[in-house]
Amino acid sequence: MKVAFLGLGNMGLGMAHNLLRANHQLTLWNRTREKGDGLAKAGAKLANTPAEAVRDAEVVFTMLSDDPAVEAVVFGDTGLLQALPRGATHVSSSTISVELSTKLHKAHQAHGQHYIAAPVFGRPEAAAAAKLFVVTAGAGDVLEKCKPLLSAIGQHTFVLGSEPEIANVVKLSGNFLIASLIESLGEAVALVRKYGVDPHQYVDMLTSTLFNAPVYKTYGALIVDQKFEPAGFKLTLGLKDTRLVLAAGEGVSAPLPVASLIRDHFLQAAANGMADKDWSSLSQVAALNAGLK
Amino acid sequence: MKVAFLGLGNMGLGMAHNLLRANHQLTLWNRTREKGDGLAKAGAKLANTPAEAVRDAEVVFTMLSDDPAVEAVVFGDTGLLQALPRGATHVSSSTISVELSTKLHKAHQAHGQHYIAAPVFGRPEAAAAAKLFVVTAGAGDVLEKCKPLLSAIGQHTFVLGSEPEIANVVKLSGNFLIASLIESLGEAVALVRKYGVDPHQYVDMLTSTLFNAPVYKTYGALIVDQKFEPAGFKLTLGLKDTRLVLAAGEGVSAPLPVASLIRDHFLQAAANGMADKDWSSLSQVAALNAGLK
Amino acid sequence: MKVAFLGLGNMGLGMAHNLLRANHQLTLWNRTREKGDGLAKAGAKLANTPAEAVRDAEVVFTMLSDDPAVEAVVFGDTGLLQALPRGATHVSSSTISVELSTKLHKAHQAHGQHYIAAPVFGRPEAAAAAKLFVVTAGAGDVLEKCKPLLSAIGQHTFVLGSEPEIANVVKLSGNFLIASLIESLGEAVALVRKYGVDPHQYVDMLTSTLFNAPVYKTYGALIVDQKFEPAGFKLTLGLKDTRLVLAAGEGVSAPLPVASLIRDHFLQAAANGMADKDWSSLSQVAALNAGLK
Amino acid sequence: MKVAFLGLGNMGLGMAHNLLRANHQLTLWNRTREKGDGLAKAGAKLANTPAEAVRDAEVVFTMLSDDPAVEAVVFGDTGLLQALPRGATHVSSSTISVELSTKLHKAHQAHGQHYIAAPVFGRPEAAAAAKLFVVTAGAGDVLEKCKPLLSAIGQHTFVLGSEPEIANVVKLSGNFLIASLIESLGEAVALVRKYGVDPHQYVDMLTSTLFNAPVYKTYGALIVDQKFEPAGFKLTLGLKDTRLVLAAGEGVSAPLPVASLIRDHFLQAAANGMADKDWSSLSQVAALNAGLK
Repeated sequence: MKVAFLGLGNMGLGMAHNLLRANHQLTLWNRTREKGDGLAKAGAKLANTPAEAVRDAEVVFTMLSDDPAVEAVVFGDTGLLQALPRGATHVSSSTISVELSTKLHKAHQAHGQHYIAAPVFGRPEAAAAAKLFVVTAGAGDVLEKCKPLLSAIGQHTFVLGSEPEIANVVKLSGNFLIASLIESLGEAVALVRKYGVDPHQYVDMLTSTLFNAPVYKTYGALIVDQKFEPAGFKLTLGLKDTRLVLAAGEGVSAPLPVASLIRDHFLQAAANGMADKDWSSLSQVAALNAGLK
Repeated sequence: MKVAFLGLGNMGLGMAHNLLRANHQLTLWNRTREKGDGLAKAGAKLANTPAEAVRDAEVVFTMLSDDPAVEAVVFGDTGLLQALPRGATHVSSSTISVELSTKLHKAHQAHGQHYIAAPVFGRPEAAAAAKLFVVTAGAGDVLEKCKPLLSAIGQHTFVLGSEPEIANVVKLSGNFLIASLIESLGEAVALVRKYGVDPHQYVDMLTSTLFNAPVYKTYGALIVDQKFEPAGFKLTLGLKDTRLVLAAGEGVSAPLPVASLIRDHFLQAAANGMADKDWSSLSQVAALNAGLK
Repeated sequence: MKVAFLGLGNMGLGMAHNLLRANHQLTLWNRTREKGDGLAKAGAKLANTPAEAVRDAEVVFTMLSDDPAVEAVVFGDTGLLQALPRGATHVSSSTISVELSTKLHKAHQAHGQHYIAAPVFGRPEAAAAAKLFVVTAGAGDVLEKCKPLLSAIGQHTFVLGSEPEIANVVKLSGNFLIASLIESLGEAVALVRKYGVDPHQYVDMLTSTLFNAPVYKTYGALIVDQKFEPAGFKLTLGLKDTRLVLAAGEGVSAPLPVASLIRDHFLQAAANGMADKDWSSLSQVAALNAGLK
Repeated sequence: MKVAFLGLGNMGLGMAHNLLRANHQLTLWNRTREKGDGLAKAGAKLANTPAEAVRDAEVVFTMLSDDPAVEAVVFGDTGLLQALPRGATHVSSSTISVELSTKLHKAHQAHGQHYIAAPVFGRPEAAAAAKLFVVTAGAGDVLEKCKPLLSAIGQHTFVLGSEPEIANVVKLSGNFLIASLIESLGEAVALVRKYGVDPHQYVDMLTSTLFNAPVYKTYGALIVDQKFEPAGFKLTLGLKDTRLVLAAGEGVSAPLPVASLIRDHFLQAAANGMADKDWSSLSQVAALNAGLK
């Protein structure tokens, strides 16, 4: 298929690579063009604007950092909306707000284009290894056509329904659950540290018994090693996602008190020098509040 | 070894059974004597009071529901403290407060007896199958002597240090982490339900990807099935444990804001007819607060 | 002075009336024109669009319900921005976001116009009686020129500095403090009711001793009478203001955990049928959560 | 009347003084005897033990710092319970738990003595000036007999009902409302400080308008001056009272989420060097969490 891919950050680069490897014709665009040089050598074309990238595309993926970035790439002067052919599909993989996803859906409908949401779970290594979990929603026939592309980037695709924004809600809720785990584990570790328990032994015990899941092992290790740099996923992005899940809750009058608490702790962390660290440094708030280093 | 076992509830019955099976001489006591009839047929003796049960014991286990029950059995008129031989050991497996554990430690020292804490993780089925995880702390030589007994009741024993109450802190923190998971998952499920997502598909997705741990599967199923009766572990016991972990935090000036939030939701649940349901009905608070049934 | 006044809701009507009474030439605009009929009889002109209303104005007041309403009236097709004469001043009295206030400031600067923020404290009766408290910020000379107008609508004007958005932050923080009071008093009343204390006697005691302030008397009476209709200030507006104060906090990395908690309770109230009641029905959440009616 | 007064701290000293001034025969006891020297010169007797102090008393007041202090003075070896004459009355003015108040009530009934709770609102200066507000509950005839004594120590007595512990609930709820005010105001002040608003001007504005109550003025001044030493009321006592109001809520299944939040912040403050400062330093937590000094 003729595929455009917009956004070559840590995640997008791996995803684009896997699409190329699956023998699709790839045209790339990134704000800083050089990020695409490696892929260009491997056969992808580089475009100067989103509009140029999508001119002949059957499908365009966007994988950008936040709502404003997606808005600029879609609705901006050289944005994709005006250039994408009628009948082509926009696959939005960015972690964006439910509100923006709905707006994109309507805009593409008004332009005779298709739109599905397909956010992903996994860190950059998983993206590189085509081991992402893809969570998607949208019109059945459109999803069907895109499945080979989604299979090329992930180990499994979950189809959630026909309303695209549902996939965004589910993605945001997943990040919320991870942040909850970081917060709770951070509080528990602070508590046992104050009683003199070795935190490494503590987390080993937890993750070899009840909490024997990859996500506990990954974040448990980051927390007890207090290894918050370099950031795999920046704290400010965690704060952004928490704001978005709270907004998603507000949209349907669903209070999410643990998310509210996490938001406040992300802000406390940001106000105290941790904005650019990994989001697992959220756990450090519990330590500081207990008088620990 | 000559072992006394006090407290034959859902958990204690299975534990006592496994000690008997490991060929120890067992004397039992329970507030309602009939609970011990099955074990008596299998070779255990039944005593009329805690004191009588421990008179010749090398080791006495207590597995009771809460602090007042343990206080009565240890310090009461026919309590074990006065009757347990010098040099014998009290293995406290109940989920009790750090404060009481410290008090027990001191009382036994004053009577020339030993004391270790050995609370367990696992539900009644795990107790019956000798699959518990045992978390223990106390003086090294005493622990050493008790290890065969702990091995008889669990699949693994974690030794945490020489201060017994550390094991109680760790046990309480573990229950806190489970309650956190119930709360967070309850909020996430309420959110996606309001967006029309099928909660069973949602939890399947979570537990086959990032949250692939037994504890998520067990509680995820209870939450989406809203199957809160019969109670495997009563909500009021969950509230009790949350109160104890908060008190443990207060003892060392460690705030646990997620535990505070959980405590408030347990109270809300109790005030609205859920006191005797399973503690996973904590998740129902998020549903009700979002206007769901 | 030649004054335009846009927005004739419960608050705006009283404010406009007092400007007219102070002998200013008033041109009015409201989405539903009839709201202005009474004032027209008293000498005010009625315009068909915001643009028409401000064409000859020296000063234009806006008193609208929320950010989208203000955006429409300022930036819309027949909005005031294009029509307001150079050198004229926009006095923004609506309770809006800090972000929008900053945006308005910049837009007016770009058009050679002036901008001050002048939100007010007080309920409709205070607006009618010219008893509002006005909180204002902006360039000193502009404020000076507007002072007679602000004096005409309020009993006192507080000048907070030269950055207009500061007045918006202070206004939002004030509403947050009122909501905090409603929440705390709601929790306290629920507690004492469960112990059988007469809530009227309780609030009388509080407001005749330590909490002898009008705001406690007003809201204390609403809470114990559970008189939430008709709404003096709708719960959804309280929710909106709470969202805005949280956003103001997020803008400077200041966590506001009590505001987070209030937001969650407003959502719970909205999800359970109280969206259109008075915002003091926030207190009802504490009652319901304690199992009371 | 023959009155015994036990506990001559900052509050008790003023109260005892006013009883003496009202011409009652006063016998005093305090753990450190010298505190009573001034009153002894003015005509009071000094006793060596609580029992000795109450031997001939018609009424005994206790005004002590916490539950353990009251338990020791009532139930200890030389405690008042064994020595107080049948038919005499214990007036408990300390801020104690509902649970202990109930226990005292029963113990006195079993000894043929009377018991009322009469906690007070006000700081030491109000105690000295007989300007306290007294909140009392107990059997009608007993209250009637004690009224002249209560009138001697306060400016007004509120009678709340016949169950003594109700007065304790109300007292605890009042301290909770003050702590809520400190917390909310602390958050609001941190917010506006980050926007560059002068906090003195801010609090002046609040307390000259909506929040025109003594309690806002007192605590507003302490917060903006960050004047937390010497402690008028120590942070650890504020923490204790918050624990007691939460326990009172738990006793009737009434969640108090603002109290939970305050408890966590008191602990954070205690863990970070503020345990011995005034409880208004609770406000400092909001400042620190926002990255302010």
